[in-house]
Amino acid sequence: MENLKSYIQENKDRFLNELFELIRIPSISSIEANKPDMYRAAEMWKNLLLQAGADRAEVYETKGNPVTYGEKIVDPKAPTVLVYAHMDVMPVDPIELWTSNPFEPEIREGKIWARGADDDKGQGFMHAKAFEYLVKTNQLKVNVKFMIEGEEEIGSPSLPQWCKDHKEMLKADIILVSDTGMIAPDTPSITTGLRGLSYWQVEVTGPNRDLHSGLFGGAVANPINVLSKMIAGMLDDNNRITIPGFYDDVVEVTAEERALMAKAPFSLEKYEKALDLTEVTGELGFTTTERTGMRPTFDVCGIWGGYTGEGAKTVIPSKAYAKISTRLVPNQKHDKIAVLFKNHFENIAPKGVRVKVEYLHGGQGYLCPIDLPAYMAAEKAYETVYGKRPVPVRSGGSIPIISSFEEILGIKSILMGFGLESDAIHSPNENFPLEQFFNGIETIPYFYKYFTEINK
Amino acid sequence: MENLKSYIQENKDRFLNELFELIRIPSISSIEANKPDMYRAAEMWKNLLLQAGADRAEVYETKGNPVTYGEKIVDPKAPTVLVYAHMDVMPVDPIELWTSNPFEPEIREGKIWARGADDDKGQGFMHAKAFEYLVKTNQLKVNVKFMIEGEEEIGSPSLPQWCKDHKEMLKADIILVSDTGMIAPDTPSITTGLRGLSYWQVEVTGPNRDLHSGLFGGAVANPINVLSKMIAGMLDDNNRITIPGFYDDVVEVTAEERALMAKAPFSLEKYEKALDLTEVTGELGFTTTERTGMRPTFDVCGIWGGYTGEGAKTVIPSKAYAKISTRLVPNQKHDKIAVLFKNHFENIAPKGVRVKVEYLHGGQGYLCPIDLPAYMAAEKAYETVYGKRPVPVRSGGSIPIISSFEEILGIKSILMGFGLESDAIHSPNENFPLEQFFNGIETIPYFYKYFTEINK
Repeated sequence: MENLKSYIQENKDRFLNELFELIRIPSISSIEANKPDMYRAAEMWKNLLLQAGADRAEVYETKGNPVTYGEKIVDPKAPTVLVYAHMDVMPVDPIELWTSNPFEPEIREGKIWARGADDDKGQGFMHAKAFEYLVKTNQLKVNVKFMIEGEEEIGSPSLPQWCKDHKEMLKADIILVSDTGMIAPDTPSITTGLRGLSYWQVEVTGPNRDLHSGLFGGAVANPINVLSKMIAGMLDDNNRITIPGFYDDVVEVTAEERALMAKAPFSLEKYEKALDLTEVTGELGFTTTERTGMRPTFDVCGIWGGYTGEGAKTVIPSKAYAKISTRLVPNQKHDKIAVLFKNHFENIAPKGVRVKVEYLHGGQGYLCPIDLPAYMAAEKAYETVYGKRPVPVRSGGSIPIISSFEEILGIKSILMGFGLESDAIHSPNENFPLEQFFNGIETIPYFYKYFTEINK
Repeated sequence: MENLKSYIQENKDRFLNELFELIRIPSISSIEANKPDMYRAAEMWKNLLLQAGADRAEVYETKGNPVTYGEKIVDPKAPTVLVYAHMDVMPVDPIELWTSNPFEPEIREGKIWARGADDDKGQGFMHAKAFEYLVKTNQLKVNVKFMIEGEEEIGSPSLPQWCKDHKEMLKADIILVSDTGMIAPDTPSITTGLRGLSYWQVEVTGPNRDLHSGLFGGAVANPINVLSKMIAGMLDDNNRITIPGFYDDVVEVTAEERALMAKAPFSLEKYEKALDLTEVTGELGFTTTERTGMRPTFDVCGIWGGYTGEGAKTVIPSKAYAKISTRLVPNQKHDKIAVLFKNHFENIAPKGVRVKVEYLHGGQGYLCPIDLPAYMAAEKAYETVYGKRPVPVRSGGSIPIISSFEEILGIKSILMGFGLESDAIHSPNENFPLEQFFNGIETIPYFYKYFTEINK
């Protein structure tokens, strides 16, 4: 790749300035009030693609947030790479735990600190710049399409329909995505598995109004007591999920594959220390990496009800709420799980309360075979830049849309992630090391090179 | 009682205007920022007492909020009544459920609507006006002392010490309190029992920061899952509290007394309908009135943790919190229960989390014998105004300071309440019927009359 390192070196500051412009837009997809920011982000992505060398780029409406699509067709007969990224970000609370403004990126300690610095503005942006390099230096030999969506963090509710509506336009040989991480800066890895997700909000109602806990305590169902008990019953003493039928579609991983996965470098001591944990916990009979990589989970992501202010208020609240998620393994169907949970939650509701279950979003898991030619191209690209062959890993995270791409468009995805565990995505003080950012911009062009060669 | 009805009739509007002035002060004792309001309320009480005819009235400092004390000594040898009330009120959230501003009283449907309309500004104020009537019409034959505190809603942490420091000044034969309710407007009742209270805030910490529920889910203890399970375990399937030793000091009520209590009018159907309950619940083997009147309880008054905003955020929070209270029956010691709970909560904490337990406040229960002369004077006073002999009842609520008075000052209290269940104290849309307010001002002077006669 001609002048790749020098191109990056010469354009370093411009790259960062452009990325920072994108980060400054608070495109939080889960908050309705930030809707105009989604359009600002979509327009900025359109301009980024055009400036990088796309033949055309447009902002498309969907039933939800907009999608920016751009393309450069070098030869209708050449293979096509479809780059997917998302322009939306997670909310920022608890805001008081951020060291600097989440939407005013800062460089400290060799890292970019901001919401979206990694997930997925930083990582998505690398593809725009790798593409720019290939176009400006006349080294692009395959067609490139970009699809940048605005609803990934809320489960991509509108993108499947949009893909169906634009199936012809989106035709490609492989989808390329940087929205995952690697094991360590000196241990590149490619994510070959993703967990699926189901996410609900539940509401438990006891009396029709908040009550004095003295006058009524002991005689009416307290919705917080009840909700706590319902949640507690969802996991047994071995931390197995008790929802009937929940494990029916879980494919048990073979002893051979478990042995292979166990070879990935992992220090339990460092893991516990980094999180300040007295001890890890989880499903009996599995290791920490197995628990996140190949097993489903049940986590309450939020709970609230009653008096949560300063001091003491003696009240039995009328309602209590929780946001509940399960992570699913590839063969589990999220819409089936959605129904199993709802039925179970309604069934176990005790007398004296009413419950409501709302399905907020979900997505399927995904598996990528490591003998796919595009996988091998990605493998070589990492090896060229990092000097080491990347390890295939199964991630605990979910990108629900990846399995939809396979279903709707019939295209596999390659998950070339450059994030690190310390990037604190979805948390306060999200960050992205400059080294990973520039290494990513350097690695991606090699993927195009090897992918072109394989397809010759 | 000479001209009692006409005195009330003639001064009706002035009484309401004065009460409204008092209500407009947002004297919420649990919120530090409202501290200056406590002093404004204390000064207003001082002026109310002086205007009503007190020889002297003063605002006393305590370690916490101020106490207003006033007195009129008609004859050092005459018996003395000590009136106790509180000037502080509960917080107002959820504020959006109020029909009108909680600190701008409105009269609608024959009721005063405001925070404190009943508890305890409305009821406390009735004593000032009954006293005013007795002074202005020269019918006061006993000494009267007023002690109005500002920390009742947070468990009166400073008043016991203040009582110890002013034991001589507070000497009295009986304490008179209107801070409870009666069964119905046509069924007067006097509260003879109060439950005690212990109230904690607990904190459960898992990882040292909020984590992505995909990348870490299944491998680290989720503090919300854990807290829910810890809470759930506090009650067994019969709704009995599982804290070891919790029931040790509970005096079981005799079959005879239970039969007597069962004679108080109570409609389960109306109770369920008023609260829109599908069914009542509670400790196995007890009726609804027994559950609130003679049994201890375990209620979570507030819970929070993780993402509680709009939409979905896939996070494992670092911390989860709850505010937990138990109501205690008279023989249980709140400070003993405080320790039993803390030890138990710490003991049941599973591996992988750290827990903190903070004791916010507590108080003892109270029992008043129905053959006490002052009780009989109160009984006759109600009978005079309401035309019916009041029923003695045990309330589920707590006024922690009442048992402290007995302990420190050696004086029993008479709980002459005029509140109704529909007053929604501690809830949004607190209210107090004008009829009860004026009946209260009419009933109290008769207490003084009969109390004077008994003591002759």
